[in-house]
Amino acid sequence: MRRRSLLAGGGVGLVGAALAAPAIAQSQPEVKWRLASSFPKSLDTLYGAAEYMAKRIAEATDNKFQIRVFAAGEIVPAFQVLDAVQNNTVEMGHSASYYFVGKDPTFAFDCTIPFGMNYRQMNAWMTHGGGLQLLRDFFKDYNVYNIPAGNTGAQMGGWWRKEIKTVEDLKGIKFRIGGLGGAVLGKLGVVAQQIPGGDIYPALEKGTIDAAEWVGPYDDEKLGFYKVAKYYYYPGWWEGQTQASAYINLGQWNELPKTYQAILTSVCAEAVSWMIGKYDAENVPALRRLVANGAQLRPFSREILDASYKAAQEFYDENSAKNPKWKAIYEPWKKFLEDEGQWFRVNEQQFDNYMLSVKKS
Amino acid sequence: MRRRSLLAGGGVGLVGAALAAPAIAQSQPEVKWRLASSFPKSLDTLYGAAEYMAKRIAEATDNKFQIRVFAAGEIVPAFQVLDAVQNNTVEMGHSASYYFVGKDPTFAFDCTIPFGMNYRQMNAWMTHGGGLQLLRDFFKDYNVYNIPAGNTGAQMGGWWRKEIKTVEDLKGIKFRIGGLGGAVLGKLGVVAQQIPGGDIYPALEKGTIDAAEWVGPYDDEKLGFYKVAKYYYYPGWWEGQTQASAYINLGQWNELPKTYQAILTSVCAEAVSWMIGKYDAENVPALRRLVANGAQLRPFSREILDASYKAAQEFYDENSAKNPKWKAIYEPWKKFLEDEGQWFRVNEQQFDNYMLSVKKS
Repeated sequence: MRRRSLLAGGGVGLVGAALAAPAIAQSQPEVKWRLASSFPKSLDTLYGAAEYMAKRIAEATDNKFQIRVFAAGEIVPAFQVLDAVQNNTVEMGHSASYYFVGKDPTFAFDCTIPFGMNYRQMNAWMTHGGGLQLLRDFFKDYNVYNIPAGNTGAQMGGWWRKEIKTVEDLKGIKFRIGGLGGAVLGKLGVVAQQIPGGDIYPALEKGTIDAAEWVGPYDDEKLGFYKVAKYYYYPGWWEGQTQASAYINLGQWNELPKTYQAILTSVCAEAVSWMIGKYDAENVPALRRLVANGAQLRPFSREILDASYKAAQEFYDENSAKNPKWKAIYEPWKKFLEDEGQWFRVNEQQFDNYMLSVKKS
Repeated sequence: MRRRSLLAGGGVGLVGAALAAPAIAQSQPEVKWRLASSFPKSLDTLYGAAEYMAKRIAEATDNKFQIRVFAAGEIVPAFQVLDAVQNNTVEMGHSASYYFVGKDPTFAFDCTIPFGMNYRQMNAWMTHGGGLQLLRDFFKDYNVYNIPAGNTGAQMGGWWRKEIKTVEDLKGIKFRIGGLGGAVLGKLGVVAQQIPGGDIYPALEKGTIDAAEWVGPYDDEKLGFYKVAKYYYYPGWWEGQTQASAYINLGQWNELPKTYQAILTSVCAEAVSWMIGKYDAENVPALRRLVANGAQLRPFSREILDASYKAAQEFYDENSAKNPKWKAIYEPWKKFLEDEGQWFRVNEQQFDNYMLSVKKS
């Protein structure tokens, strides 16, 4: 048996694509992929992360593994990136998984859940909490191998034309919002709309929508929302962190040399730190410029936060009752979130809150 | 000129070590390195990160780039790792740079500064805030190329035999503490001692020291401190985050193929997320076990925090006045920290604090 498989293995090597190359080069074949991003080129964070990954992978393989990045709309529209990878139209995608909650709300666990984890907790769940394996099992049904590849940190609560102080004020507001936050706010009377990043500004300008959230100061400034809606709310409780993901067609992934699999995985991890570092560095001057240009910072009221929190828990329970895939991830996710809260309350947040208090004086 | 360097390049290739291999294999030579860790084998986080990196690098290079990891004391003692890399006794090290503040307090910027950044802020400073370049310039004088390669997050305030409520209570306490926290507490009468991780427990057990801090619940439990000192303080304000670093002998780094440089860099970034994720996941059950075994959680009093904060600022100003290398990094570091505080106060901490408040009820 063993002898037979050795022979079979040798045969595959000889008839493979790299016939003309010496055997020693087999581990570094030329691989050329196309990557479809869900983000517009103007965003050098979200779109830029895919470019950054392509560059790093080329550097690690002496340009043997080349990934060409296409912005939203160049090959497929922003919200068809998952389909394009599933169908092998492109080998790879880069997206925010909550764009696909219309297929199944369970996708949101790969991205963000309202009143869910912060970045540190999400990283712990993915790397050591069993989260990544649960999500890999889920993505397998879509013929996709998923790898975390970016994070924005906690997002802002978006740009609103008028102040909202009570739950009553939310009723009838047409709000562009990503992922499950829309379903939660829908319970409070908001009319939620999912619109790709590059198309939000014209909708807000024309009044097709009353308010819009994207990410935070750095991106939001580039997209220009402050010009047409001046109240800038915080925190974006529907996105305590938001993870971007690399999607790889499962067949393509399985055919990739093990060395390239390892390099791609490490580079995706590097892209997470790169992206959140870029946001954390660039949001500071961007926020200052926005305020100088008339943005009015407003915290969500406790009333709105509490009503939203309650609506979110109801939404999660409804999904658990009717969607076994949701329930299979929600239950361990919730347990992990509660556990993490206990640890962060003891130490991490005590440090952060002391620093907050001392810097004020 | 161009023709001549092409010829010279070809000549080097032909007389090089890989004479018998076809030219195509030149980009993946066999490289075998030894890595000296400053940490004991019992700690599968700090020591384990170096093993993890070695494994990932082997996977990315089809075992061509092999790194053998040695624990503290196996080749050199914990606090001689920097010297060993500087002198090329080993090609690589893995350590916490504040172990070398005796050479120059400036080393602490590569690790942690009391009342300094949290993990997110440190990551932003390193990746996009100019921090890494400032530190690379500093490490060059030690013949070392440094790469961030691990982080613990905010640490705990250590294990104390008796309760400390006032600054008066600190006087004369012999305290094992890493890095600059010792110098700061020295201003308040503490007798600070730097002791490698593997040697702390016997010192605490024998009473050579009165108190000791290491990292947090997961590591501290393994080192057994709760058996001999029951008051477990928080937060570890001297380590709002603590970065571990890979040290590479500068000559070895420069000789490394560009592909291996790229792989090593990506893998170090991956190790940062891996390590902090492991701590954030494992600290939860470890803290529960410690409390079940009699650990008494105690917050540092506001009096102690404020006095320590004041002492820290004095210490920083004293260093700035006498140490130009310190000043060159401290000033941009301080500016970046203050900027980050403004952004985190608006959004990230608002989210975290809401989650803290709602989970309590």
